[in-house]
Amino acid sequence: MPRLSNLLVEGVSVGGLETCLDLPEWKLAFDLGRCPDFAVNRATILFTHAHMDHMGGVAWHAATRHLRRLGAPTYIVPRENEAAFAELFEVWRKLDKSQLEHRLVALGPGEEFVLPNRLIVRPFRSYHRVPCQGYALWSRRRKLKPEHLDKSQDELRALRETDELAFDTLETPEFAFTGDTLIEVVERTEVVRKARVLAMEVTFLDELVNVQQCRDKGHIHLEEVLERADLFENEALLFTHFSTRYSAERVREILERRLPSVLRGRVTALLPR
Amino acid sequence: MPRLSNLLVEGVSVGGLETCLDLPEWKLAFDLGRCPDFAVNRATILFTHAHMDHMGGVAWHAATRHLRRLGAPTYIVPRENEAAFAELFEVWRKLDKSQLEHRLVALGPGEEFVLPNRLIVRPFRSYHRVPCQGYALWSRRRKLKPEHLDKSQDELRALRETDELAFDTLETPEFAFTGDTLIEVVERTEVVRKARVLAMEVTFLDELVNVQQCRDKGHIHLEEVLERADLFENEALLFTHFSTRYSAERVREILERRLPSVLRGRVTALLPR
Repeated sequence: MPRLSNLLVEGVSVGGLETCLDLPEWKLAFDLGRCPDFAVNRATILFTHAHMDHMGGVAWHAATRHLRRLGAPTYIVPRENEAAFAELFEVWRKLDKSQLEHRLVALGPGEEFVLPNRLIVRPFRSYHRVPCQGYALWSRRRKLKPEHLDKSQDELRALRETDELAFDTLETPEFAFTGDTLIEVVERTEVVRKARVLAMEVTFLDELVNVQQCRDKGHIHLEEVLERADLFENEALLFTHFSTRYSAERVREILERRLPSVLRGRVTALLPR
Repeated sequence: MPRLSNLLVEGVSVGGLETCLDLPEWKLAFDLGRCPDFAVNRATILFTHAHMDHMGGVAWHAATRHLRRLGAPTYIVPRENEAAFAELFEVWRKLDKSQLEHRLVALGPGEEFVLPNRLIVRPFRSYHRVPCQGYALWSRRRKLKPEHLDKSQDELRALRETDELAFDTLETPEFAFTGDTLIEVVERTEVVRKARVLAMEVTFLDELVNVQQCRDKGHIHLEEVLERADLFENEALLFTHFSTRYSAERVREILERRLPSVLRGRVTALLPR
């Protein structure tokens, strides 16, 4: 897998079957699928929604991290799923006779959560058949205000220690993942268009399933992406969640043929490893 | 994987992580692990107990069979797990917003269930840290009584159609799987010793974990099997559920060195594919 604008993004994502998007450098994953082996090592999982192909492996993840003494994981879960998610673990505690320790963080659009690596997680609304949210991950750093640019090294050092007001706070959307959604998320959510790296579901690619049928299932069709090609300001895009109807070869062939020059060099497809 | 006394037995089985024992010719599996791909095609799953590494993938199995239009599966579950198993599906219906159709058959030692392929399932008690049962699968066929052995072909045909009493019913234990258990299951349960093919957990193989530590975890140690080598009348034995402490190479090396001649030719190890 090539780096996407200097960020390693891997994982598995097959529409309906299994989605687990892996960001190993940030020690986190989006969704879990069945919990592939690599995901056991991720301490933070951000769930976009509760469909089986995205959340199915969560209890196994908690149990296996315990077995391997990897520490209790943190699960970031849409507020709409909080109660049933907690019930799921209650039932599994009865079955597995174990604690299945984890930290449950319910989070919704408009809220934020700061990760141990200091990235800021901000969910945004996605549009699916069930409650679903995407996530943007923001970095934050201090930037010297223009009026201090002429200062000497010594003066700057003093400023850093004593004068917060000499700095602006600069936030950068490093990454966004749409989850399963209708295309409307692109127009309605600025961070989707502006995140440095965007991972976006593009479930259907041709007339095997047309745009209206695709929308009825709550997914994005390649045609809808192409119509909006000029909107994407991202440095790199990862297309995920292709339907099982398309072989890896077929995905490559269609993208090769259909992507316009404005997108071509920036798009990578997440294909089976 | 070689055939075991003419029966194909495959699957994955790693102690603590994932066990799913596959009998493709009989269209069934014992336990599910995370539900590896092959298990999606099995319509009948027999669960030995509810530990995560044995049952973790059950909801994903039901969802994925529905997605692929493979028909509702049958889950045979220890009676002790019936209520919590049903609750698990209730919770997942809330999360996944789907029916997750399946047939739940609670079954315990002393009871039986006839599979679509006419094999008879009979659970037996196993001895683990949580309620656990093994399964024996029996074939049943009619066998002419000795006093009719001199009959002609025509007379036999007539007998078959008219005289049930001319036949004995012959039951054969074709296969037994112990589930997770202490070694006591071997002495206490005749079918374990006599099944044509026996799949048995042998979690620990050497002094990395000694016999007492192994027993404390509710498992079988190779030493305990060797002490009972003469008890096994099975045509073939499959050892499963090796601890992650042993590489495939190490398992092979230990079995090569330790198995006595009375077992050597009959034992196969279920190693990672």
